[in-house]
Amino acid sequence: MARIKPGKNTTRKELITRKAATLFKSKGYAVASMRDLAESIGVEAPSLYNHIGSKSEILRSICFTVAGSFTSHLEQTLQGTDPILHKVAAIIRFHIGMMLNDFDAVYVSNHDWKHLDEPYLSDFLNQRREYERKFVQLIQEGARRGEIKDTDPYVVVLTILSAVRGLEFWQHHKKNISTDNLENNMVDHLLNGIAK
Amino acid sequence: MARIKPGKNTTRKELITRKAATLFKSKGYAVASMRDLAESIGVEAPSLYNHIGSKSEILRSICFTVAGSFTSHLEQTLQGTDPILHKVAAIIRFHIGMMLNDFDAVYVSNHDWKHLDEPYLSDFLNQRREYERKFVQLIQEGARRGEIKDTDPYVVVLTILSAVRGLEFWQHHKKNISTDNLENNMVDHLLNGIAK
Repeated sequence: MARIKPGKNTTRKELITRKAATLFKSKGYAVASMRDLAESIGVEAPSLYNHIGSKSEILRSICFTVAGSFTSHLEQTLQGTDPILHKVAAIIRFHIGMMLNDFDAVYVSNHDWKHLDEPYLSDFLNQRREYERKFVQLIQEGARRGEIKDTDPYVVVLTILSAVRGLEFWQHHKKNISTDNLENNMVDHLLNGIAK
Repeated sequence: MARIKPGKNTTRKELITRKAATLFKSKGYAVASMRDLAESIGVEAPSLYNHIGSKSEILRSICFTVAGSFTSHLEQTLQGTDPILHKVAAIIRFHIGMMLNDFDAVYVSNHDWKHLDEPYLSDFLNQRREYERKFVQLIQEGARRGEIKDTDPYVVVLTILSAVRGLEFWQHHKKNISTDNLENNMVDHLLNGIAK
């Protein structure tokens, strides 16, 4: 029976989670089985259970790892003394980076959180709400300081988060543009608009 | 057996399609049955078949009605002599209006087109690609005329279409803001940015 071989700096559990994100994204969480997962890793199903308890445990791991990355980046960004617009730019860049570099996990977290069991579901939704609330506060602070236009902060946050999430569709196109260019253009659009 | 009673100016088929969009959105196209649909309209399943052939016929009707609305609005907008930025604003406003006023149908069209049968699937995807291509051309024309910044036109179109599509998530929030305000803020953000 083949053993689960992670690369350098990757634990077995991380390897399984990464493969699972790819599988859930392509096949759909509800339909994908532990047997499919074992197959995609190249091991027998029983050996998976030495490392991970269940499919729902893997989903939890994916969703909370992604949510944790976003939350800790936000906390760190909010603490700095940069101008508010720089902070907003950093948040947008982080979202784009996550979409481009950790796409499968972010996709599963965005689509399959609905399948989390309680109390994890409520916990996950609370984390998302808190994230949005703090982002809205940052926009409000920017408006107070005169760095950001006096506009509805919820709409600003919705527009930004929707735009970066839309990179999901970008993956289908794979237009001929470097990721740096993509990132710079999108950040500039969302901060400064397109009107000349 | 109850008869299908449409309102004024609504055909029976339109009524069925509207009810189906709401059902598909809430229950999922794959899971929703013609029996569920009959129940949501308040008639027996057989009387549905007097008006519509199958579930997939309804899905086609929803997807192509939505796609047709977007395409004909775009064609009309492109023909005018307005400044390019006005045209872009009109397109954004139309998308927001569709999301707010015809949400269930747009949602189903955005999510369930995957379930279309051939040749409808290819036709639908072609319509979407054509729409994006013409929108990209409009942005390029704006840059040529010096009305729009010299930026990557695909990224601009992706950012705009993703932002308006994100109104899908807005429905969950129902924040205390008028639809006019929402529309004006989002259009201003996408054209002129948020930086002061």
